[in-house]
Amino acid sequence: MFDISAVNRHKEKDIQQIIDQKTKPPGALGQLENLAKQLALVLVLGNNKIIINHPTMLIFAGDHGIAEEDVSIAPPAVTQQMVLNFLNGGAAINCFCESNKMAIEVIDAGILLPVHDVRLIVQSLGTGTKNFSKQPAMEKTAVEKGLKLGADVVNKHVASACNVIGFGEMGIANSSSAAAIMAAVLKLPVADCVGRGTGIDDTKLEKKIKLIEQATQLHKKNLNSPLNILASVGGFEIVQMVGAMLAAAEKKCILLIDGFIATSAALLACQINQNTRDYMVFCHQSNEQGHQFMLEHLQAKPLLSLELRLGEGTGAALALPLLRAAAAFYNNMASFESAGVEPKIN
Amino acid sequence: MFDISAVNRHKEKDIQQIIDQKTKPPGALGQLENLAKQLALVLVLGNNKIIINHPTMLIFAGDHGIAEEDVSIAPPAVTQQMVLNFLNGGAAINCFCESNKMAIEVIDAGILLPVHDVRLIVQSLGTGTKNFSKQPAMEKTAVEKGLKLGADVVNKHVASACNVIGFGEMGIANSSSAAAIMAAVLKLPVADCVGRGTGIDDTKLEKKIKLIEQATQLHKKNLNSPLNILASVGGFEIVQMVGAMLAAAEKKCILLIDGFIATSAALLACQINQNTRDYMVFCHQSNEQGHQFMLEHLQAKPLLSLELRLGEGTGAALALPLLRAAAAFYNNMASFESAGVEPKIN
Repeated sequence: MFDISAVNRHKEKDIQQIIDQKTKPPGALGQLENLAKQLALVLVLGNNKIIINHPTMLIFAGDHGIAEEDVSIAPPAVTQQMVLNFLNGGAAINCFCESNKMAIEVIDAGILLPVHDVRLIVQSLGTGTKNFSKQPAMEKTAVEKGLKLGADVVNKHVASACNVIGFGEMGIANSSSAAAIMAAVLKLPVADCVGRGTGIDDTKLEKKIKLIEQATQLHKKNLNSPLNILASVGGFEIVQMVGAMLAAAEKKCILLIDGFIATSAALLACQINQNTRDYMVFCHQSNEQGHQFMLEHLQAKPLLSLELRLGEGTGAALALPLLRAAAAFYNNMASFESAGVEPKIN
Repeated sequence: MFDISAVNRHKEKDIQQIIDQKTKPPGALGQLENLAKQLALVLVLGNNKIIINHPTMLIFAGDHGIAEEDVSIAPPAVTQQMVLNFLNGGAAINCFCESNKMAIEVIDAGILLPVHDVRLIVQSLGTGTKNFSKQPAMEKTAVEKGLKLGADVVNKHVASACNVIGFGEMGIANSSSAAAIMAAVLKLPVADCVGRGTGIDDTKLEKKIKLIEQATQLHKKNLNSPLNILASVGGFEIVQMVGAMLAAAEKKCILLIDGFIATSAALLACQINQNTRDYMVFCHQSNEQGHQFMLEHLQAKPLLSLELRLGEGTGAALALPLLRAAAAFYNNMASFESAGVEPKIN
């Protein structure tokens, strides 16, 4: 379905050499050096410069049947209200994108209460998933359709020369879906995968764990492939994010992945095609229990760790200036030779 | 010498209330909420908006007599070469400031080999300090003069409405001076304070420790006040940074403090006047051993941890977009009421 090439690792030696000739001790820019290397592998074309073009945040919104079990701090109506807030520019992600010069697009991937607004991309897979603690979240055909719809949004932006895409999400109860995906992919006990989302108390946490344990028992035989996992315990916004990630990697964009829900989609995208990993920049270490395990599985060390627990793509938007800084030093920093600085290293 | 007011903590409750009414669960923006609170305490005037004006990086350069002991990866000539590199826009700090829209000013606080360039602010305290493993680094009068000169640079920028100042430095061997300052202020064994700077090997590290132990023995009786510590084991650039920090706090600016050397100056500035701490934002957790102890002493949790070990103010320049993001959400994010979002928190 997606034709994703691995990056050309043969270029790595030349890229490393460019970085090592910059006027600084080797390795002195730490994680930014690795970031520059990855960006150079993905975003450098003819002129040996890293070009970041029209970075765009895609926020996928969807509702979750399991929200009826009261496992979140807020009711599903808040998904609709927050979609409106995104469209009106009032949410945290709007402020961060505005501050960091990043475009935003909001997608209704399947919310419960409709939003009628021309600025919203409506490609709904339904009015929320089914309660996956009792039945499959969605039909397999919805998964296939969702992957394609997610890809469509990315392809539209790539056609306008965008080459850096952030993945944001909104969906009351979607950390339940993400935890179930994580448990299925990493084959970990549910209790290791479930956290407090945006802030539930002990009683709800216990309930959330039990429900997801029940769900993984119920769907046991179907948790055998990324598409079946999505059908069993996924969310409409998560499905579309997976499709969008695969399309972005296919088109050789940089993918900005932040928190718990976006990382669960990233896990599945990498399962579907492991080359996707080459294009992913991990932006933020979430406070959500379990995120660390997913990151370890993906061999990822995020750029930021600011104790955010909001979602929306906030961690990805906040990391964008670090990509620009990495590109700036790769593109513009003087070499020892050009600056007349002695590269003496004892 | 400096008249520094503590911030008005009575405003904290109102500021917290503004943050808590934003459309997000309480605390969901993690460290950015604390940052916004601090910025609101310092940079908000009449209209209840955080205004960041003309953020400027001051890079203080100075040479160190102790460099003759060969405790660095590079010779003192590199201080001069890097000052030229800063002026010509080729260093890492130039790239990061350009990328993050921050002005740069470079100050010769006392380098060994002169740089003749109209863009350089020359306020030299001498052609490098004395070797402090054998004698005091400088006269007490140089300390007093240096504090004032550092303050002068800040006051000039404040007069042009700048209210956020980053503190960068360049000086071969200045991590030796910073380690000696740290040992004196925190009363820690020298071995806990000395690290590899920009990358020395085991042999040089051992030598560096011995030399600084020798120095702290030699100056034992004089390490009893911030000014005497500076005279005994300080650096010309460090002295001017301390003066600049105190002046910036006096003028109610935000101070961006990053790595090991800048933090040693921050330690002394806080010793001279503890209210200075209220204005300091800690930007980057350095890889240099010892930085963590200084941060703990200052009760600081830096915004970034990118394994940088370069100095120049790079960590401070990289953190600036996080200040802008914190200001953006404080100033512009919708409240539950204005956005029509239910603030239901179970």
